[in-house]
Amino acid sequence: MDKICVLRLGHRIFRDSRLSTHVLLVARAFGAEKAYYTGDKDKNLENSICKINIEWGGDFVLEYIKNEKKFILNWQSNGGDVIHLTMYGLPVKDTIENIKTSKKPKLLIVGGAKVPGDIFSKADWNISITNQPHSEVSALSIFLHEYFSGKELDLEFSNPKVKIIPQKNTKKLVTKK
Amino acid sequence: MDKICVLRLGHRIFRDSRLSTHVLLVARAFGAEKAYYTGDKDKNLENSICKINIEWGGDFVLEYIKNEKKFILNWQSNGGDVIHLTMYGLPVKDTIENIKTSKKPKLLIVGGAKVPGDIFSKADWNISITNQPHSEVSALSIFLHEYFSGKELDLEFSNPKVKIIPQKNTKKLVTKK
Repeated sequence: MDKICVLRLGHRIFRDSRLSTHVLLVARAFGAEKAYYTGDKDKNLENSICKINIEWGGDFVLEYIKNEKKFILNWQSNGGDVIHLTMYGLPVKDTIENIKTSKKPKLLIVGGAKVPGDIFSKADWNISITNQPHSEVSALSIFLHEYFSGKELDLEFSNPKVKIIPQKNTKKLVTKK
Repeated sequence: MDKICVLRLGHRIFRDSRLSTHVLLVARAFGAEKAYYTGDKDKNLENSICKINIEWGGDFVLEYIKNEKKFILNWQSNGGDVIHLTMYGLPVKDTIENIKTSKKPKLLIVGGAKVPGDIFSKADWNISITNQPHSEVSALSIFLHEYFSGKELDLEFSNPKVKIIPQKNTKKLVTKK
């Protein structure tokens, strides 16, 4: 699958911890290679993603960055595309095919409490899922689902300790030896 | 669109308030008619959904229920289907076409902190999006996106006070008089 990374803006310890964790779990489960975050540096957030990798496999990476402006500029000058997910942007259904045709590495920006205004002008794309209020977690999942055309749902992660065997009416979790 | 309602289980005031709000915003934005919730009755949660309706339109309804077991049983005896979203269930991509062919009203159960074991045996369907840990917010959005085949992204809500006009590089919000 094409390389895609996620940048979560403005994480706040305590207030955002569960939502940021969900954003990062979606990034990992839906095929992003790596995520970056800004805001408060949060050891618990990093540990929870680390534990998920140990338990469920793969080598999804989370990295804290201090300065998103420099980072975004750098991404673009290295030949990458920057896509900002926002309810104010152009509809994903009208833009996704164009976005897919560009083979550049993609940085997906997922807003936090306050998105600096210049993200809108700096991004190569400002993309909405719907123009109704919903959630950065759902915006990220629908974008990745459309971007990978559903193939991300079949992703296998290397060296998991546990694995679910899908069942009709019960739970089945096997532990690998 | 076909009738579909959401049941959020085990809401806890404070700890779940933002995640439950996101679940409910996704339910509304992605075409569910109504949502129910169990756990702590939460006036703030109800008010925030009420404000969204006033501002963004439509008549999405949120209702607190005490006893989910009785409610689920009742839904089924009135001829409805119950679908439980869980990472342990059968893959959505293998089941969604079958689910769509049933024209019964659907109740989508979205777990909270602790899902009672008998939900798995009582549900008509236990459905996973992926078998990796992610988020009830993304599970709900992907399910509704698949169920409505993307048509939910074009939903219009009646009598909004504000409306976004999608833009390439800026924000545009118009206020209706």
